[in-house]
Amino acid sequence: MRILANEAALKRMIRENDDVLLYLDKRRSYLVKVERGKKLHTHKGFINIEDLLGREYGTCIRSSKGVKFVAFHPTIRDYIFKISRRTQIIYPKDIAFIIFFSGIGPGSRVVEGGTGAGALAAAIASYVKPSGRVYSYEIREEFLKIAAKNFKRIGIADYIELKKGDLTKKIEEKDVDAVILDLSTPWLVVSHAYEALKGSGFFVSFSPTIDQVVKTKEALIESGFAGIETFETLFRGMQIEKGRTRPETLMTGHTGYITIARKATI
Amino acid sequence: MRILANEAALKRMIRENDDVLLYLDKRRSYLVKVERGKKLHTHKGFINIEDLLGREYGTCIRSSKGVKFVAFHPTIRDYIFKISRRTQIIYPKDIAFIIFFSGIGPGSRVVEGGTGAGALAAAIASYVKPSGRVYSYEIREEFLKIAAKNFKRIGIADYIELKKGDLTKKIEEKDVDAVILDLSTPWLVVSHAYEALKGSGFFVSFSPTIDQVVKTKEALIESGFAGIETFETLFRGMQIEKGRTRPETLMTGHTGYITIARKATI
Amino acid sequence: MRILANEAALKRMIRENDDVLLYLDKRRSYLVKVERGKKLHTHKGFINIEDLLGREYGTCIRSSKGVKFVAFHPTIRDYIFKISRRTQIIYPKDIAFIIFFSGIGPGSRVVEGGTGAGALAAAIASYVKPSGRVYSYEIREEFLKIAAKNFKRIGIADYIELKKGDLTKKIEEKDVDAVILDLSTPWLVVSHAYEALKGSGFFVSFSPTIDQVVKTKEALIESGFAGIETFETLFRGMQIEKGRTRPETLMTGHTGYITIARKATI
Amino acid sequence: MRILANEAALKRMIRENDDVLLYLDKRRSYLVKVERGKKLHTHKGFINIEDLLGREYGTCIRSSKGVKFVAFHPTIRDYIFKISRRTQIIYPKDIAFIIFFSGIGPGSRVVEGGTGAGALAAAIASYVKPSGRVYSYEIREEFLKIAAKNFKRIGIADYIELKKGDLTKKIEEKDVDAVILDLSTPWLVVSHAYEALKGSGFFVSFSPTIDQVVKTKEALIESGFAGIETFETLFRGMQIEKGRTRPETLMTGHTGYITIARKATI
Repeated sequence: MRILANEAALKRMIRENDDVLLYLDKRRSYLVKVERGKKLHTHKGFINIEDLLGREYGTCIRSSKGVKFVAFHPTIRDYIFKISRRTQIIYPKDIAFIIFFSGIGPGSRVVEGGTGAGALAAAIASYVKPSGRVYSYEIREEFLKIAAKNFKRIGIADYIELKKGDLTKKIEEKDVDAVILDLSTPWLVVSHAYEALKGSGFFVSFSPTIDQVVKTKEALIESGFAGIETFETLFRGMQIEKGRTRPETLMTGHTGYITIARKATI
Repeated sequence: MRILANEAALKRMIRENDDVLLYLDKRRSYLVKVERGKKLHTHKGFINIEDLLGREYGTCIRSSKGVKFVAFHPTIRDYIFKISRRTQIIYPKDIAFIIFFSGIGPGSRVVEGGTGAGALAAAIASYVKPSGRVYSYEIREEFLKIAAKNFKRIGIADYIELKKGDLTKKIEEKDVDAVILDLSTPWLVVSHAYEALKGSGFFVSFSPTIDQVVKTKEALIESGFAGIETFETLFRGMQIEKGRTRPETLMTGHTGYITIARKATI
Repeated sequence: MRILANEAALKRMIRENDDVLLYLDKRRSYLVKVERGKKLHTHKGFINIEDLLGREYGTCIRSSKGVKFVAFHPTIRDYIFKISRRTQIIYPKDIAFIIFFSGIGPGSRVVEGGTGAGALAAAIASYVKPSGRVYSYEIREEFLKIAAKNFKRIGIADYIELKKGDLTKKIEEKDVDAVILDLSTPWLVVSHAYEALKGSGFFVSFSPTIDQVVKTKEALIESGFAGIETFETLFRGMQIEKGRTRPETLMTGHTGYITIARKATI
Repeated sequence: MRILANEAALKRMIRENDDVLLYLDKRRSYLVKVERGKKLHTHKGFINIEDLLGREYGTCIRSSKGVKFVAFHPTIRDYIFKISRRTQIIYPKDIAFIIFFSGIGPGSRVVEGGTGAGALAAAIASYVKPSGRVYSYEIREEFLKIAAKNFKRIGIADYIELKKGDLTKKIEEKDVDAVILDLSTPWLVVSHAYEALKGSGFFVSFSPTIDQVVKTKEALIESGFAGIETFETLFRGMQIEKGRTRPETLMTGHTGYITIARKATI
């Protein structure tokens, strides 16, 4: 236990080429790789990134204008948030649900697709690592490149097998624990998912429209899945401040529906 | 990879003393330990549990009245659902969020409390195992017994150190990755959590009332935490059926607010 | 103005054959007609209803066990709540929206159906009276009787023309301000509603399922309606109490979708 | 009845100085007074407003670029929407609830404040007219002018007595049916509202923060109100389109809480 704790503490020392999340406030934070001689320019002045070397994560650093930033250790949620700036990706709230409700954990083998910018695959990988694997399918060449780059930066590339392939045509893996989908025609993947899953394994699909959900459910029943459920979640931020406490005005009204099912056999 | 797949497949064969979830429909399922000579009596007839031995998870079995049940491999969510029948526990939707937003994963060391029936601790353990640990605090003797029994049944007892202790008084661990609370006075734990956490580590608290959240936020600011956010989630089931598709009538209007924060240092 | 005020005050004196809402708490209240010699028996003791005669609405009265009840003047919402005990009716939250978003007010002429127990018709009548009218259609004989009785009790029977008829076959009125529907096949009423409405008049439909809404919207576009909108509302009660403030646990997850449209002409 | 219908039809003919709502689509509509020689310039070309004279409301008119607009009869909701462009006002969804849950209707006498731009007062007036009255209080001179102008345009000025006064200091009216508040310190109005209301009359307050609600509830209990309830509503638009049906992404997460109570007397 002693050793574990030491290792963990060491892991949290900021070293060269590490990523840090420079946090100013809820709306403004910067994901930066720590390199010698690097300066981060913000509207609150610049920060000498090099000064972070050897300090512990969580440390505060001041910009040239004296404004305080906290150097947080980036989590998978922070990476996803940064990825989302450039491409449309699944929301953290939905990723949280997909991971928990799909029954996966350390060691699970998961087929996932379409990869897109890689946010969902990266999140899954960070929960199945180190012994588990994500087989992430994508047909669009340009996204394969973006995703590969994102996986490397996040540091989970070793746990993901990025594959050029079309899940509506074929799944190559067998006996996987879960098939997790974020693509436009999930119902076309259902029968392949059934073949790829081990008994009792999970099919999980994220879809924005009701029409997709209805077609997917029909395909699931036909293929022999059971325990089929569909739900949606609403996420509401709160402003907590004595005398001014209230839910936040801005809220996302809809992202998508999550459908889950388990493989039943005869 | 071959070997991994075989192992995984083997793991999913139903063996003596395994738990199975005998699933009838969305509202009725039974968590049963597989033992020779055992019969499960339901209003749909009885099931010879012994007949499941050697079959794969996901297999269907018929009751004496010919009604089909699916023998699913229980997930942590299934166990939590069954635990919740007997004691009031945190909802799966909130556990999903707590785990994802607290930045933990395989290998994380987490302080948690109050243990209660153990649902939250068990869920966390199933994501930090095998190399991580949960230090779960509880002051009520009767719950320590219930939790210990639940951990053993779920098969995650090796990853949880169940401790009789009061988090509002003291946290013994150092350099932990997260402190996760489901207790009535989280604000009294905040300064101890700050001491126990490594830099950038997460404080997460679940509280039903606004008053608890306001006090906790004030304590967090005072102790030096940053990145403080509070949110709530709403979970709505959907009835998906051609010609009858609609959200379900029953919905839980409120479970609690989740507050997260990260340790910032000078 | 003097006179108006006096009249209003007089109206609020409890007289024989008036209805009063005897309010104990949020969950328990009794709608009672004031009659000489009448006793209301509750689990908190009995109340001599006669004692209310000549007192002002809002007055408190004690039961034989000394428990305090408030004698409120029943509102249309109170009547609807009582009607709803016996038959499935549209929720007050949806009635509130339907009335406001349909643009009706004192003097409006409105076609409504199916009548059912009359809750929606009664609510509309209480806003279009005294010069407006509700033409309420119902095909089921037993409901015509129930509704007529309810209208009389609520005191709005003079403003409602209760009609035995099928809105999917024909609407007899012309130049009405709104057609408001709570029935299972609203799309079959759309073309008749178009004929019955004056230009710019409102079509409003309440439907539990998505499938009904999709069909209705298609019919609306085909018939020449414009300004088509569909929405749903969620209503969440709050428990307000220093130190224990929080949303209530119980909440209705779904009642139905409201679709509105206005008649456009060439 | 014949006569009523004719009158109603006449009312819907577009005449000089009438307002029309020129509707293009859900996001774009124009509230315009009909005057000779007037042109409305839009990015879809211009419209000769004069051409609408003598036509029925609901009629379609084409812009110089051939784009179709519908000339709807403006409802109170349309006016409120237009007013909201210039000042922050209460949302239609909340107005709908306030009106229905406050038990008011044709003939009611209502104290309201702060007036602001007049949206809430105008809406109430359109339901209590012609025999009822709204006494609308405002202390800020600039808003008294804006509101007066809005009331005149909407055509409900005759039913509103606009008063320069501070509701937290005094309410001059007696025996009113309801006191409806949208101001920052409603708890300071509670005792005056109690004096102004007739027995069983309604106090209704709209407040964005929890803190306001807690203080108001305490004042209500102290003053002798009963039947106190607080709730919030969520309004979610739906996109209805075969193959693409889903809730809309944009949604307002919070506007405010509505608290209602009724005057109980001894």
